[in-house]
Amino acid sequence: MNESRRQKARNAHEVAAAIRAATRSHVPGALQGLISGYHPIDIAYAMTELSGEERAAVFELLDAAASGVVLEEVDDEIGEEMLEATEEGELAEIIDAMPPDVGADAVSLLSAEVRHRILNRIPRDEAEEIASLLAHSEDSAGGIMTSEVIAAPPDVTALGVIRHIRRTVVHPEAISRVYVVDRDRRLVGAVSIATLINARDDQPLQKLMEPDPVAVHPDTDQEEAVRLVDRYDLPSLPVTDDEGRLLGAITVDDVIDVLQHEANEDLAYVAGTSVDDLTSKSTWRTARARVPWLLISLGASLLSASVIKLFSGTLQEAVLLAAFIPVITAMSGNSGLQSSMVTVRSLALGLLKGPRLITLVLRQLPVALLVAVACGVTGMAAGVLVLGHPGYGLIVGTAMFCAICLGTLMGSLVPLVFDRTGVDPALASGPFVTTVNDAISLLIYLSIATGMLRLLRL
Amino acid sequence: MNESRRQKARNAHEVAAAIRAATRSHVPGALQGLISGYHPIDIAYAMTELSGEERAAVFELLDAAASGVVLEEVDDEIGEEMLEATEEGELAEIIDAMPPDVGADAVSLLSAEVRHRILNRIPRDEAEEIASLLAHSEDSAGGIMTSEVIAAPPDVTALGVIRHIRRTVVHPEAISRVYVVDRDRRLVGAVSIATLINARDDQPLQKLMEPDPVAVHPDTDQEEAVRLVDRYDLPSLPVTDDEGRLLGAITVDDVIDVLQHEANEDLAYVAGTSVDDLTSKSTWRTARARVPWLLISLGASLLSASVIKLFSGTLQEAVLLAAFIPVITAMSGNSGLQSSMVTVRSLALGLLKGPRLITLVLRQLPVALLVAVACGVTGMAAGVLVLGHPGYGLIVGTAMFCAICLGTLMGSLVPLVFDRTGVDPALASGPFVTTVNDAISLLIYLSIATGMLRLLRL
Repeated sequence: MNESRRQKARNAHEVAAAIRAATRSHVPGALQGLISGYHPIDIAYAMTELSGEERAAVFELLDAAASGVVLEEVDDEIGEEMLEATEEGELAEIIDAMPPDVGADAVSLLSAEVRHRILNRIPRDEAEEIASLLAHSEDSAGGIMTSEVIAAPPDVTALGVIRHIRRTVVHPEAISRVYVVDRDRRLVGAVSIATLINARDDQPLQKLMEPDPVAVHPDTDQEEAVRLVDRYDLPSLPVTDDEGRLLGAITVDDVIDVLQHEANEDLAYVAGTSVDDLTSKSTWRTARARVPWLLISLGASLLSASVIKLFSGTLQEAVLLAAFIPVITAMSGNSGLQSSMVTVRSLALGLLKGPRLITLVLRQLPVALLVAVACGVTGMAAGVLVLGHPGYGLIVGTAMFCAICLGTLMGSLVPLVFDRTGVDPALASGPFVTTVNDAISLLIYLSIATGMLRLLRL
Repeated sequence: MNESRRQKARNAHEVAAAIRAATRSHVPGALQGLISGYHPIDIAYAMTELSGEERAAVFELLDAAASGVVLEEVDDEIGEEMLEATEEGELAEIIDAMPPDVGADAVSLLSAEVRHRILNRIPRDEAEEIASLLAHSEDSAGGIMTSEVIAAPPDVTALGVIRHIRRTVVHPEAISRVYVVDRDRRLVGAVSIATLINARDDQPLQKLMEPDPVAVHPDTDQEEAVRLVDRYDLPSLPVTDDEGRLLGAITVDDVIDVLQHEANEDLAYVAGTSVDDLTSKSTWRTARARVPWLLISLGASLLSASVIKLFSGTLQEAVLLAAFIPVITAMSGNSGLQSSMVTVRSLALGLLKGPRLITLVLRQLPVALLVAVACGVTGMAAGVLVLGHPGYGLIVGTAMFCAICLGTLMGSLVPLVFDRTGVDPALASGPFVTTVNDAISLLIYLSIATGMLRLLRL
């Protein structure tokens, strides 16, 4: 039984195939029966495999709660399409059944006009909460928080809070902590639900609470918020305004979503493409996501072409040296990629805050030298071996040493400069910077070659 | 007040500086006073900045609970060093105070001999739990689960379970769900703590539970377990044996740690370095992590050098064509990186399970053609512009078209082949594969050049 559940948890293709078969069978009730047997999230995963028509048929048969889960899970593109196909009365019901933060995400997919009509159809409190959540930027703590938090004064007893939760809370699954606030709703403490269960009925929150819990401002970047949750293993992170008043909280499932999104974004930037490319299924959109990045690096690589053209005299003299052009660019690029990745991750983990940027770059210097010496010596040997002349080996080895020093230092420095100027540092590991790196290392290689050829009279 | 806490939460450098100053001041009690004012996790983050001596001084002053938190958070290397410096009686106390999964992680850092003595010093149940956790592989669900779960039969009432938790649970913060088991401890349901709080005192768990919760086997890969928690927004994931008996559960904070580790690993592989490089602070270890990867790609790039050497006759004839060597390799490499990244992420998200691998590669074909045409045409224009001859433009454009088709298809295919043969697919985006890609695309470029030069009699 358990085993079958485990299996079911995985295979979106099979769920999609079963749905498609049920749709085609035209047996009355077949699709409805099938759908109610699946977890809504499995249906959401299968949605991407289905056609627009099949999706609409499935979505129509879901109840409000399940529709909410499906909407939360599918790509915005598909969600938008499903929302547009749904009758407004039903839509209002679905959104009303969602926790406010999820409802706000769904509503944000609607056109301003439809949004206005929908918000008018759902209960006033819920509509106001959604409207206030919509005011925050999507990438901020305010944008991912839920306003559905339990707040209680410090003198309330454990039993009192538990009774309050029983009476008022609509989505109890989402609650992991009770927040303690003063008369002005300023956050003064936090009590975990587990602590509450362990408490004597008459104990006041004041005695149970962890005072001054870590909190963030709604404008805080979502990545910073996620960092705090990860760092302190928080069950939820309160969001407070300038006066320290409680506005909402960020729950752990949102944190996991942000982490996954961030990992996608970093990888996409490093690969020189957009996050869109990772989620899109359409040929046209995928190509459109990739081509601009490739054209940018094509433009940048023409720098390398110009450098080589500039030195065509040298190459005419010693055409064998052309053989090491891809070796030099690969090594300089790879060493740059290594050190930029370390800088990018350190920035992401918040390890490079503070005034020690220069110290950190200086710390890379001995690493750069060690790595450059190791590769320079091997490069020299390879040069002698492949090109069959010690002089050529000397040229290759020296150039490789310089190119790797350059690559390692550029790799450490460029992400820091990007970060300081407000550009995502992960872009520094992308193809554009790597290609510029190529051009500079070729300039070094061919300059050294020209000089040495003359010096050694090869 | 809240603001100061937010500040304090961030700055490991400042915490380290304060600790260093207190150590140097030699004022009795200064360090102790300072340390008790910080969150243990902030102390853990500051540890990497301190010297071995300073670390030992700080660690000695922490109480058992705080020592546990610090040990859990610091790198294994530092943890090992601190454990070795601690007296065994105290060590046993610290490990006893930890939740069993954290205790097992700490104990695994000790030598077999010390481990044995420590396990003998702590209470029997705890020692047995730790020993059974140690039996699982570190990267498996069993390796990250905690055995500290609440299990209760289906006929127990809500109040009964709550009383049981109050009596028996040592680390209530970690509990988010109660698991319902039958007589043979087979898992039959799960009840969230929040549901429990919302229930009437006399309601039996049977009425409250979600039946057949998603569960994993202890040998399940930790990444698969994390995927399930993310997918179903689970507060914790139960681990069951072959007979469906409950062994333990994976908590959300462990999931977040695995996600962070995975993101690091993927980025490290793509950058052609090891995870060690991202955490190590020693020059020597950093260099040692990087050099082998660079030497491997140096070896691979000699393939490119040999290809060019093979065609030195052609280059002697038309040396200007050397100018486009780095352009062709950059474009083939970048297009390959884009598509490999998409495959790697799809594999990580479990989207490519099932028999449709070939379908998926075929789906890349139109993308490859579209991208290759766009870049081929631009490449031709660039060739004419930089090299000043339409014939050269034709050579560059044709080669770029072929190189990008090759790069895109290799990028989609190689990670799949790696995955099928049990190699981490993220390695396919690393420098080695890229460099092999370089060599093949140069072979194409220079073959086309040789053929066309003859054909067009340039």
